[in-house]
Amino acid sequence: MAKSTPTQQVVNGIKPGALFQPIDAIEQGPDVSRFNFRVENSWVNGAHNRATVNEYHGAKTTHRRDKTYFVYDMDEPPVLLGEDRGAGPVDYLLVGLAGCVTTTLVYLASARGVSLSRVDAELDGDIDLRGMLGISEDVRPGYQVIRMKLMVEGDAPREELAELVRLATRRSPVADTISHGTSLQVSLG
Amino acid sequence: MAKSTPTQQVVNGIKPGALFQPIDAIEQGPDVSRFNFRVENSWVNGAHNRATVNEYHGAKTTHRRDKTYFVYDMDEPPVLLGEDRGAGPVDYLLVGLAGCVTTTLVYLASARGVSLSRVDAELDGDIDLRGMLGISEDVRPGYQVIRMKLMVEGDAPREELAELVRLATRRSPVADTISHGTSLQVSLG
Repeated sequence: MAKSTPTQQVVNGIKPGALFQPIDAIEQGPDVSRFNFRVENSWVNGAHNRATVNEYHGAKTTHRRDKTYFVYDMDEPPVLLGEDRGAGPVDYLLVGLAGCVTTTLVYLASARGVSLSRVDAELDGDIDLRGMLGISEDVRPGYQVIRMKLMVEGDAPREELAELVRLATRRSPVADTISHGTSLQVSLG
Repeated sequence: MAKSTPTQQVVNGIKPGALFQPIDAIEQGPDVSRFNFRVENSWVNGAHNRATVNEYHGAKTTHRRDKTYFVYDMDEPPVLLGEDRGAGPVDYLLVGLAGCVTTTLVYLASARGVSLSRVDAELDGDIDLRGMLGISEDVRPGYQVIRMKLMVEGDAPREELAELVRLATRRSPVADTISHGTSLQVSLG
């Protein structure tokens, strides 16, 4: 059998060569790198919401999606006046953060040829309800702190895995959005 | 039939009286208002991750959850080297934002006795992949801007609905986390 060329080897389920195709494409013109992600949400009743992840724009193309693909129910637990028909919105934020840092780490490792056998994470975050309820102006409504502990195993020394975790945290779109904040424009249509 | 007392009337699926029970409880002692939300995530392969929303702590109690309840697959679309086995992490962030602003709006409306017949939302956000890919240090990896347009109908004049949207945006835990940023502590376990 012919030996694979380095760009065709699959590391962590990703062809390292594939990681450089977007970079090459972007160097042809910056519009390729501009993505726009779209979501719709409908309130059902009480704390129950149903969101649908829609088409997205990227690589100069609008990518249509079947609207039955990604539909997510949200609710609150009974102690927060809901009926637990889905995870809460604040849970979804942690889910997205978990996946984003992990995938960024996996892509960075693949680009370096580091083969990973495990990436598990535990996340938790503190919210003081006095902010949301308007009881105290001194208490912010949002997360006061979010902690994420990664358990990573692979064919690299621990120092290199720690460096990959640091780089993934800096490069992850969701981690960057949460840690640095972003411009939020909310309007009544 | 006996007329309902105001605190028993259900508005938008929420008993307005129920909204004040947490406030009364919190005034007995601030520990009641401290919540901690917990999520676990496991990398599967490539861009595929599976997150589980766990027990949460709040109202001085740890609330156990069946771990089969809220399980979420994440992946990337093919153009971002995944296989679309779930929405992307950046989509989950928008989903959580949508649900959080909406539920906060519904609770605020219920507390005022405003009955809502519709709360729909369209969200979109811009990400330039040059940040995540490390092509340009001048481009942030995260969302550059997130827009959320709410379509709200209810038995209040438009100015009051607009005021509710503004207040919900300020009080929503996810909106506050995203717009002001929060402390993120990521570690290798």
